[in-house]
Amino acid sequence: MQNFEDRTRRCRRRLRERGAAGVVLFPSPNLYYLGGFHEEPSERHLFLFVPSEGDPAFVAPELYGDQIRDESWVEDVRLWADGDDPVELVAETATDLGMASGELLADPTMWARFTQDLRAALPDAEWGLADEVLGPLRVRKDDAELDALRRAGEVADAAMRDVGELGDDAVGMTEADLVEYVEERLVAHGGDGPSFGTIAGSGPNGAKPHHRHSDREVQRGDPVVFDFGTRVDGYPSDQTRTVVPAGDPPAEFESVHDVVREAQQAAVDAVEPGVTAGAVDAAAREVIEAAGYGDEFVHRTGHGAGLEVHEEPYIVAGSDRELETGMVFSVEPGVYRPGEFGVRIEDLVVVTEDGCERLNRTDRGWRT
Amino acid sequence: MQNFEDRTRRCRRRLRERGAAGVVLFPSPNLYYLGGFHEEPSERHLFLFVPSEGDPAFVAPELYGDQIRDESWVEDVRLWADGDDPVELVAETATDLGMASGELLADPTMWARFTQDLRAALPDAEWGLADEVLGPLRVRKDDAELDALRRAGEVADAAMRDVGELGDDAVGMTEADLVEYVEERLVAHGGDGPSFGTIAGSGPNGAKPHHRHSDREVQRGDPVVFDFGTRVDGYPSDQTRTVVPAGDPPAEFESVHDVVREAQQAAVDAVEPGVTAGAVDAAAREVIEAAGYGDEFVHRTGHGAGLEVHEEPYIVAGSDRELETGMVFSVEPGVYRPGEFGVRIEDLVVVTEDGCERLNRTDRGWRT
Repeated sequence: MQNFEDRTRRCRRRLRERGAAGVVLFPSPNLYYLGGFHEEPSERHLFLFVPSEGDPAFVAPELYGDQIRDESWVEDVRLWADGDDPVELVAETATDLGMASGELLADPTMWARFTQDLRAALPDAEWGLADEVLGPLRVRKDDAELDALRRAGEVADAAMRDVGELGDDAVGMTEADLVEYVEERLVAHGGDGPSFGTIAGSGPNGAKPHHRHSDREVQRGDPVVFDFGTRVDGYPSDQTRTVVPAGDPPAEFESVHDVVREAQQAAVDAVEPGVTAGAVDAAAREVIEAAGYGDEFVHRTGHGAGLEVHEEPYIVAGSDRELETGMVFSVEPGVYRPGEFGVRIEDLVVVTEDGCERLNRTDRGWRT
Repeated sequence: MQNFEDRTRRCRRRLRERGAAGVVLFPSPNLYYLGGFHEEPSERHLFLFVPSEGDPAFVAPELYGDQIRDESWVEDVRLWADGDDPVELVAETATDLGMASGELLADPTMWARFTQDLRAALPDAEWGLADEVLGPLRVRKDDAELDALRRAGEVADAAMRDVGELGDDAVGMTEADLVEYVEERLVAHGGDGPSFGTIAGSGPNGAKPHHRHSDREVQRGDPVVFDFGTRVDGYPSDQTRTVVPAGDPPAEFESVHDVVREAQQAAVDAVEPGVTAGAVDAAAREVIEAAGYGDEFVHRTGHGAGLEVHEEPYIVAGSDRELETGMVFSVEPGVYRPGEFGVRIEDLVVVTEDGCERLNRTDRGWRT
């Protein structure tokens, strides 16, 4: 069970330590994290004001009144109707909550449309970003969050095992067919739907790191990059395996795969509290560079995962961010040979007292 | 076939008329509209700079280089690698394009994280919103856009006809089952996936305007609000019908349904070039108020639809926005009786020289 009130108390404490007047959130993971209310961003003005002292308040379209009262613990809900000027209600609410001046921290994904209105409505405020206070809270997962992340990892693992059993049946399937199969298996094992666009990149398509899928049919001997995840109780999984469903892979594939696998293991082995994110990236990168594939590892080693599937901490070259227990992130080095194939291997890990725990446990080899 | 270069030329002309230096877009429908490149927003700095004079340029993560070159006509693509500081590249690019000072118009959905960085990187610029110049272009659909919108409407109509044939089979199905059925029929008729979260609101759930679906089973005599659409070539459909699949509806349902249907017709009849959006809203609202249900019509009458399923023009009380040929929007009055049932009827319409054309044509009655 998520404890939204407790998180809000911790947010207020950090606001006071910083000397900031409050945070202003709009529909986002941050708003859910504190307010317990989930909604997609839309063109209507919907904000949660959290002052450094006193109770938070929603400003929302009338239409959302019942939903907010049903889902959120926040009692002060101020509604505007179509035809009203929501910006007046914003100014009034900020004044009531002591947030008309001083430093206000905006939700980092708040749309420019709304930040412009907030700047106009509250001309005496100075603006910063809410991740200054919410980032350090959200980056260390609490027990309820870790439980959901572990379960999401188990669902992805079960689906990957099913994919591994396709063997010859995969030959002649299109990448789109494979994606449909993966997503069906994720649901069958208890997932709440994909946590991001499922990737099945076969043969040369595997060499495009952000390729999703196409109508290309899998050939015997094709390596296929499977990168997917699902959500469980709002929290995602995210894993990648590169496998050869049938036949013999192209020349050099096996040695590239060995190198990527070794790099992934080296990065996982490097994880422990106090180590920097940059050092974890370097652990993977050194293995790949030593093998002569450095130019073909074109992205960072990993990203945090929680309410957002890409969030802090980023495991990127040069980052001096120190790892802390409870952080969850991906470790996913890759090597991409344009026109030929790509290899990526990825697990989510959670930082523990003495190292880390992998949230994905299926075999990391390429033979299925 | 979409003509992105031509749109960019028209955007530049409007920038010069306004005396603005340029627009800065990030992954959004605006970026697709001008640049022909589609991507979801992410935490990485990815911008399209369109100056009032000269050629546009992308600033993007290295990872996206090939995709941008494949999809976009824009030739100047400046890439940054993980570990680089993208904000420096932003400042440099803006300077090269004559966009380091003067009025810059930001994408209205650009995240605060990026608008803060742009403000810091370009301290001499003044900021406005890109819809000032892109809004008037995007609101009048060109032939390629209208063609896609018509085809999307036909797919939704075909799916609604299938829903109408469920009859007794709908009794005992959950709302979630109905949603699954609708989405399967949309794909079967050629849609590219739902254009928004499909709504099936049965009995009292129909009285919550933004309810999506639940595990509630449809009872004999339940009215069910079906609000759904699909995308075709990137453009959406959006229609609503309120039907009673089996049995006799509750007392007063029939008269409420008659009123909503009459209100929807009155609003459609009011549409023509030069009429205000507010007058269309009033045409629907007057019918509902005259029947004594005014307090139960809790939302605006409609919203524009194009690359976004909610966009300008909004058909809202008091709006003095004049309708123009080629505008496309929904006409969707509703009456909601909390704890009992709701009724909403919706079509998309396109404004023509002498009135409008409905893009949805299935029967608007409640008997199936």
